[in-house]
Amino acid sequence: MKIKPLGERVLVEPVKEEEAVKGGIIIPDSAKEKPQEGKVIAVGTGKIDKDGKKVPFNVKVGDIVLMPKYGGTEVKVDGKEYQIMREDDILAVIG
Amino acid sequence: MKIKPLGERVLVEPVKEEEAVKGGIIIPDSAKEKPQEGKVIAVGTGKIDKDGKKVPFNVKVGDIVLMPKYGGTEVKVDGKEYQIMREDDILAVIG
Amino acid sequence: MKIKPLGERVLVEPVKEEEAVKGGIIIPDSAKEKPQEGKVIAVGTGKIDKDGKKVPFNVKVGDIVLMPKYGGTEVKVDGKEYQIMREDDILAVIG
Amino acid sequence: MKIKPLGERVLVEPVKEEEAVKGGIIIPDSAKEKPQEGKVIAVGTGKIDKDGKKVPFNVKVGDIVLMPKYGGTEVKVDGKEYQIMREDDILAVIG
Amino acid sequence: MKIKPLGERVLVEPVKEEEAVKGGIIIPDSAKEKPQEGKVIAVGTGKIDKDGKKVPFNVKVGDIVLMPKYGGTEVKVDGKEYQIMREDDILAVIG
Amino acid sequence: MKIKPLGERVLVEPVKEEEAVKGGIIIPDSAKEKPQEGKVIAVGTGKIDKDGKKVPFNVKVGDIVLMPKYGGTEVKVDGKEYQIMREDDILAVIG
Amino acid sequence: MKIKPLGERVLVEPVKEEEAVKGGIIIPDSAKEKPQEGKVIAVGTGKIDKDGKKVPFNVKVGDIVLMPKYGGTEVKVDGKEYQIMREDDILAVIG
Repeated sequence: MKIKPLGERVLVEPVKEEEAVKGGIIIPDSAKEKPQEGKVIAVGTGKIDKDGKKVPFNVKVGDIVLMPKYGGTEVKVDGKEYQIMREDDILAVIG
Repeated sequence: MKIKPLGERVLVEPVKEEEAVKGGIIIPDSAKEKPQEGKVIAVGTGKIDKDGKKVPFNVKVGDIVLMPKYGGTEVKVDGKEYQIMREDDILAVIG
Repeated sequence: MKIKPLGERVLVEPVKEEEAVKGGIIIPDSAKEKPQEGKVIAVGTGKIDKDGKKVPFNVKVGDIVLMPKYGGTEVKVDGKEYQIMREDDILAVIG
Repeated sequence: MKIKPLGERVLVEPVKEEEAVKGGIIIPDSAKEKPQEGKVIAVGTGKIDKDGKKVPFNVKVGDIVLMPKYGGTEVKVDGKEYQIMREDDILAVIG
Repeated sequence: MKIKPLGERVLVEPVKEEEAVKGGIIIPDSAKEKPQEGKVIAVGTGKIDKDGKKVPFNVKVGDIVLMPKYGGTEVKVDGKEYQIMREDDILAVIG
Repeated sequence: MKIKPLGERVLVEPVKEEEAVKGGIIIPDSAKEKPQEGKVIAVGTGKIDKDGKKVPFNVKVGDIVLMPKYGGTEVKVDGKEYQIMREDDILAVIG
Repeated sequence: MKIKPLGERVLVEPVKEEEAVKGGIIIPDSAKEKPQEGKVIAVGTGKIDKDGKKVPFNVKVGDIVLMPKYGGTEVKVDGKEYQIMREDDILAVIG
């Protein structure tokens, strides 16, 4: 089963915190809104600019991203938890 | 009888929760704003962009979509309940 | 006597609730903002887009529409009650 | 003495309520924001669109219009009371 | 000494209320935000539109204008009080 | 050491109030938000318009300007206090 | 390990306050929102303008910048603390 996000949305699978240290990133506890690591599972149908053209995504399927923890909408597919959020809410790609 | 949504609105028939598990999607209880599965019954007359051209819809009649549960306006037609909402409020197409 | 709405506004005559069932639409009581059936009596002078061109209306005189119950401004002409509202606030055309 | 409203503003002389029934329009008491009849005395210097061109007015001097009662700024010229308001706030032309 | 307002701002010298009756304009006491007569002393460096072109002013030096009483910023130059405000806040030119 | 403001920001050195009377400008005490004289020390890297072109500044280094007292961000460089603010917040050039 | 900020975001490493005096900049204690020195570690994938073109950054890797202290999102990479913020929130480049 597949989920195709609409517009500029992306589907991200959050990385569990115990695993997220692999890259050496630790999010400090004091942060008001904790960012969180995740893996891009699907990108949306595309944002449309003023001239009717689709704006390319800056992230692609498989990217490990840094995202706000409560910025998206949670969905559960085949038993796994995902987040659907707008690409503009993603902070950075980790590589 | 037919309902033609205006502008960028779509008419969606919510899928009852007991049936919605068919695709394997289960919306977690803890979500603040629960998304919900639905079936697109009709798309609107079209959103107009800055140049006066109609922007094509990303969803089509028959699509199973993931939508916010209380994002639209409820209407009842011939005894069935529907939601009228803007396409931009739809989260994803499930396929 | 005639009323010509300005800009993107339309003049709508609300259909009384006992008559509104004719098409089979019943608005559920639990809806926060009840939509209501109405008949378009006049469309406005036209919305102007960024290039100075008039945007055509999606509704026309005689259309039966679904509109938010308290979305417009009430006026009484020759003893009949009407609503003046922006076309974008109309939810759908019923046909 | 003359008043030339700036930009998209118009100068309107409110019609007294006892006279306003001539056209058959009665504004219901229950309306939250009562609209009011008025006569257009002067239109503004013109609204400028994105391309620097003036947008023509939809009302002209002499038009009887339906306007929100407290939508403009009151001024008194030669003993008469007027309202200066943006054209977009005028609801309809009565003819 | 000269003051050149920036952008779409204008410099206005308020007309004292005892003198302001000359044109026959009396601002009613009941108005929530009293407009006030003033004389344009200087116009700004010009508003820039979307295409980088300057938008011409609708008022010129010497114009008597109707302006909101507390809409601008008060400055005192050589002992006289002035208001600096955006042109769009000026209601009308009196002529 | 140099500070180059970013975008449409400018760096302004406030003129002390005892010196500020030189031009004859006295800001009245009753003003809600007191404007203040200052000298432009540096202009920013430039604001970008919709077409990607830089919008020229209306102020230049050395200009004496009238600015809102608490409109910018205070910084201290080599013992002197400065304000960094957006050019659009500057009220006028004094000359 | 690398962090590539998305869109118009930049990754900045804050300079510790004891070291920040090197350039002679001391941020006054009384400032409501204290600006802070930092070093640009990475710039984003680029902001897209209305025509779909990327807008060049005004800061580059290695720049010492003046930034609001709590304007970004804190992340910790390989034990070091960083801030991810939009370029428009950076006040100035120090050189």
